[in-house]
This record gives sequence, structure tokens and C-alpha cells, in this order.
Amino acid sequence: MNPTPPAAEAAPARRGRPRSEAAERAIVEGVLRLLEEGTSIDAISIEGVARLAGVGKATVYRRWPGGKDELLLAVVDALEEPPAQPRGDSVRDDLVTLLEWYRRVGMAKRQSAVLRTMTSHVKSHPKLWQQYHDSVIKARRETLHGVLRRGVASGELRDDIDLGLLGELFTGPMLTRTVLHESKDLPDGLAEQIVDSVLDGVRPGR
Amino acid sequence: MNPTPPAAEAAPARRGRPRSEAAERAIVEGVLRLLEEGTSIDAISIEGVARLAGVGKATVYRRWPGGKDELLLAVVDALEEPPAQPRGDSVRDDLVTLLEWYRRVGMAKRQSAVLRTMTSHVKSHPKLWQQYHDSVIKARRETLHGVLRRGVASGELRDDIDLGLLGELFTGPMLTRTVLHESKDLPDGLAEQIVDSVLDGVRPGR
Repeated sequence: MNPTPPAAEAAPARRGRPRSEAAERAIVEGVLRLLEEGTSIDAISIEGVARLAGVGKATVYRRWPGGKDELLLAVVDALEEPPAQPRGDSVRDDLVTLLEWYRRVGMAKRQSAVLRTMTSHVKSHPKLWQQYHDSVIKARRETLHGVLRRGVASGELRDDIDLGLLGELFTGPMLTRTVLHESKDLPDGLAEQIVDSVLDGVRPGR
Repeated sequence: MNPTPPAAEAAPARRGRPRSEAAERAIVEGVLRLLEEGTSIDAISIEGVARLAGVGKATVYRRWPGGKDELLLAVVDALEEPPAQPRGDSVRDDLVTLLEWYRRVGMAKRQSAVLRTMTSHVKSHPKLWQQYHDSVIKARRETLHGVLRRGVASGELRDDIDLGLLGELFTGPMLTRTVLHESKDLPDGLAEQIVDSVLDGVRPGR
């Protein structure tokens, strides 16, 4: 999760890249296989994962110098839906795209015991959670705020609401359902319904 | 958490009530004192609490037949803000009252390590969480839905949004901030801002 050190960034050729990507995939898949077989996260060791992936421990540490914690975040990353890419057309449609991504992630979590286990592990370890926050959640929020800023500039959104709150008016109802009320439905069209209700307001006759 | 059985309800005189209420308070305060001194929830025993409160174990079990789990819920209840009572005037004002209650609970949790510890204990124990849900959360949702139904009937709220979703449009942004983003501000006026934004919508020129 640390920024790439300048030396590495400046490295001229990326020889051996494909091989190391294959190793990376094998390592992440090794962790997933262990989790699916019921191994607890605490019981997973770099040594065990390396053996399963057919690589040396050094290969794992070269890719993830932070060790197991950093590797676990890579596994969460591999499990999650690829981040939503707003198309830059109407702000309304971009907000639907972003909220639809949250909905899909919520559904994936309900269907995957491994993803749920991983998520609650990350959440209950403050250092891991901070790293996850700084990498994944911050980027997601930046994407959302970019769309909102565009909407304010184009006159599609009011300019008198704090940007953080404006975002939460859209994401809050979806997150409440995906994260806090896990027994509730996540029907098709939920993202559209939330976005349109928040845009138009819930007073009658609009 | 169970409803009072009819026999008890029909009991004519409430002799000894004050004494048992005092015992109840002493027991709950005993648990709080232990938690404040740093005793872990797991290490708390009915025996230890009874000793601290100067009562017999039987007194504790008479009041909380479910034992420690039920007692813990009573402690959470004692720690939480008393539930918000909507006044039944304008639906807008009642929604502000309800959301302001969430905000105060969120602030209380940020200030009280004991309340935070208790809450995460309840959340991580499915049986306890279910009991808490069935008693506290369900009642809270019923209050909210009562206000919303009144608003739909009086024409203050649109009638074409599912009641569950309508409620989440208001509570979602507040819960996102109090529960999910604990580092974010909970400023005065947040409840009003959320309610008015959701009512009016976030398109300009309304």
C-alpha cells in the first residue's frame, strides 16, 4: 500500500513481468483456495501459501513487502467487483453507475462466505482497515466527488450542500442496505430509485 | 426483552417493586463499573456482578432469566439515549427529531468507550444481535414508519416510494456517518440538513 519507491518507478525495462504476474495470481488464488477449504485467516501463513502456489517465500515478500496483511488486501481486491467507471455523460447516469456498483458488491458479499470473512477480518484489524481505507475507499470517494463536482459545475446539482454530505445523500441509503441491513432486498433498479428520489426530492408533485 | 407475561401484568399490588428497581439499578451499575474499570465483557460473571451489587445471584436471574446476555442488553439500554418521541406536528419536524436522536447516539458512542465496547460485543454475537434487533431496532423502525405513513397520508410525502426505502433515504445518510465513517463530523444542524435535502431534492432551483 506504500507508494512505489522512486528507484523502482524509474526502473527501465519490466523484464520478467509476465512471470511475476502469473506468480502473483497463483499466490492470491492459493489464499482463496485455503479460505474456501475452511482454513481460518489466522491460520494462513506466507509459507503455506507459497508452497501451495509453487513459489518461494521470497517471491511473496518481493511482491508484498508488508507480508500477510498486504497480501490479504490483494485478496480482497481480487474478490471485489472492479471499480465502477462513470462514463462522464449525465451526472444522473454516472451516479446510477456508481450506486449500482455498491449494489453489486453488496450482492457479491451476500453470496460469498469468503468475501464476507475477509471483509470482517479487515474491518476488525485497525491497521488493515486503515490501509484498505487509504487505498480502496479513498479512491472510490474521489470518483464519487468528481462526479458531484461536475454536477455542481454543470448546474445539475445544487451548489449549497457540502460535497461530503451531498455524496452521502446518495450512497447512504445504498450502504445502509448493503452493509447494515443485510437481510434486506437489493432489487434491480434500486440504484436508479435512490438516485432519482434524492435528485427530485420526496415531496409530492415534483 | 420478552413482553411481560399476563400473570405478572394482572398482579394486583406491586409490593416490593421499589426495592427490586433499586436492585436492578445496582446490578446494571455494577456491570458498568466493571466495564469502566477495564474488565472484559467475557470476564464478567453473574456471580461477580451480584456480589458488587450486594444482591444474591437469584435476584439477578429473577429479573433477567436469560442470564448474562439479557443483562448485557439491559446495560446497553441504560447507556443509550432514551428513544426519540416525535411530537406529531409537521412530518418534517418529526423526521428531524428522529434523525437528531441518531446523531446524539452517534456522538455518545464516540465519547463512551464502554458504549462502543458493548455495541460491538452485541453486534458480534448473532443471538444477542437478534434480540437487540427484535426489541430496540424494530421499535425504532416502527416509530419512523409511523411518521412516514402519516406524511404520505397528509400529502407531505410522495406515495410512490416503498416505505422502507423512503425511510432509508432519511436515515441512510445519518447512519453512514455515525456508524460507517466514525471519523467524520456530526455537526449541529446535520439532521435538519439531511431532512430538508431529501425532502426538497438536490437539483437546483427548487
